[in-house]
Amino acid sequence: MTDLMKSFLTGIESELQKQVSRLDAPRTKEYLEMLTYHMGWTGEGAGPEATGKRVRPLLVLLTAMAASGEDQQTSQFNWQAVLPAAAAVELLHNFSLVHDDIQDHSDKRRGRPTLWVKWGMPQAINAGDGLFVISNLSLLDLAENYPAETVVKAATILQNAALELTRGQYLDISYEKRASLGAEDYWPMISGKTAALLSACCDLGALLGGADEATQEAYRSFGHFLGLAFQLQDDILGIWGNEVVTGKSTASDLVEGKKSLPVLIGLEKKGRFAARWAGGPIQLSEVEELAKLLASEGGYAQTQEMAKQMTDMAINNLRTASPQGQAGELLLNLANKLLRREA
Amino acid sequence: MTDLMKSFLTGIESELQKQVSRLDAPRTKEYLEMLTYHMGWTGEGAGPEATGKRVRPLLVLLTAMAASGEDQQTSQFNWQAVLPAAAAVELLHNFSLVHDDIQDHSDKRRGRPTLWVKWGMPQAINAGDGLFVISNLSLLDLAENYPAETVVKAATILQNAALELTRGQYLDISYEKRASLGAEDYWPMISGKTAALLSACCDLGALLGGADEATQEAYRSFGHFLGLAFQLQDDILGIWGNEVVTGKSTASDLVEGKKSLPVLIGLEKKGRFAARWAGGPIQLSEVEELAKLLASEGGYAQTQEMAKQMTDMAINNLRTASPQGQAGELLLNLANKLLRREA
Repeated sequence: MTDLMKSFLTGIESELQKQVSRLDAPRTKEYLEMLTYHMGWTGEGAGPEATGKRVRPLLVLLTAMAASGEDQQTSQFNWQAVLPAAAAVELLHNFSLVHDDIQDHSDKRRGRPTLWVKWGMPQAINAGDGLFVISNLSLLDLAENYPAETVVKAATILQNAALELTRGQYLDISYEKRASLGAEDYWPMISGKTAALLSACCDLGALLGGADEATQEAYRSFGHFLGLAFQLQDDILGIWGNEVVTGKSTASDLVEGKKSLPVLIGLEKKGRFAARWAGGPIQLSEVEELAKLLASEGGYAQTQEMAKQMTDMAINNLRTASPQGQAGELLLNLANKLLRREA
Repeated sequence: MTDLMKSFLTGIESELQKQVSRLDAPRTKEYLEMLTYHMGWTGEGAGPEATGKRVRPLLVLLTAMAASGEDQQTSQFNWQAVLPAAAAVELLHNFSLVHDDIQDHSDKRRGRPTLWVKWGMPQAINAGDGLFVISNLSLLDLAENYPAETVVKAATILQNAALELTRGQYLDISYEKRASLGAEDYWPMISGKTAALLSACCDLGALLGGADEATQEAYRSFGHFLGLAFQLQDDILGIWGNEVVTGKSTASDLVEGKKSLPVLIGLEKKGRFAARWAGGPIQLSEVEELAKLLASEGGYAQTQEMAKQMTDMAINNLRTASPQGQAGELLLNLANKLLRREA
């Protein structure tokens, strides 16, 4: 890892801790503890495994520096000034995870018991709400280093992404009860649940790096397609990833009943896969055979093709944005890593 | 009702509808419906009874006009420009109600089935989140008529109030499991749950009406004490209100187990009331006797005394703020009405 990435990650973690410490008061120690536990800093299993990779705040910082055209070695781009926005997107993401875990009744997150399992559903709803509020407050801290006009623009980007998140979440939950689903139901859900926030990260970075409007638009589109491509790769690995197929992991999306694109393609075919899906929860013992069946009905190839298209769109938009310097290279590296491409 | 109040209420409702209509899109009709149902506009029992009184947005508008020193008859104070902030506080309030109903497992709100009863807990959490996002977006619409610096200040006021709300909610939920509670546990909870948002309403109004800092501070304190006094009155009526005592209503706070100030005073006494409270849920048949017992142990008189003190503080701060014109009179009327005082 480069020194710059290390500095970014240290800066992000420290800004996140500063923001969450707003709850550090005598009567709300336990409330604070819920948030520091969820963020991966405290409690059983705390540590790097529990924090997640901080991909979203990294995107904000890298985009900001790459868009500023200033390389750290040669100039004075003040990336610390961007940290409140980087923390804001990570806090927004974590707010959505806390509520998601309640809505999905998930008892584990990054290998640890979820918030609602440890503190109960009412407190977990409230802790999620708290993360969202602190995300909003964090973003407003940009005012220390940016003109108010820029802060209002940044807040609008963040809130529009948040609204998209809730739209995607609404669709995801509503699909549980929908009798018939097809591939076309996938895109609006995933645009909201995954792409909107990654797009907002790049949009914010470009804004705070001082990009012109056309460049900002290119970064925004890069983030959007990066999000879609990343999700499609994730969908493929969730069914045909090595660990999943060999049964080393119980985390097959088929067992979890996740409405990923391959599954929706299979349902649309109304063939043997769709018939089995309609027959109730998938067992671990069926996973390998069912994955093969779904591939034979086109689920693998069609998703792979879409992933390729979205990846190309992401990379093309990133080229248009023309990221500069070391941060620009790191941004391309991060994108390639997320898209599991060879560099 | 005066023409000005009618105009305000019409303006508020129309701004709220405009804000919520952000979800008016083909795939999210049901999501939109959840919000319009909760806001009291659609579905079974829709109408004025279901919308609530819109006290918070009225406070924003009245404070703004009273602080501007401009009377509607004689000048041009553009109260419509303040509507996005008025809508924002009402949406924030409603976000908290939706989550509150899930957390408390309440099945009725203003006489109608709650959101989670109609659409299930996962969708209700998401709909609450959506109301909060739309609140944030609504506030940012102030930028159409106010300088960005003012918008950032307004957003900071709103988010700080939201953080207080979650602090109060955390305490309220945590008290369920606390073995020993006393009167001192009441104030931080109620400052967060009730006073913070009313204080923010007046703070926002003063800011947007162009008050100087000292006046803004007086309005903010007015809102804070108004919130506390209002809550204390509500606590008293919830136990000794006519309908409650005569058994015409089943909504006694004693039956609901609400930790109101009179109850906390009773618990602190560790007398006969506290012993009965510890013995499990209160039945409707015991309410009249138990209310008398609690009064005999000081719960009524002490709460009444606190309510009087908070009311005096509210009115004194309002005098210091020196609200002007017709809006100033209406603001005083609204305060008196909320505090159930004779005008």
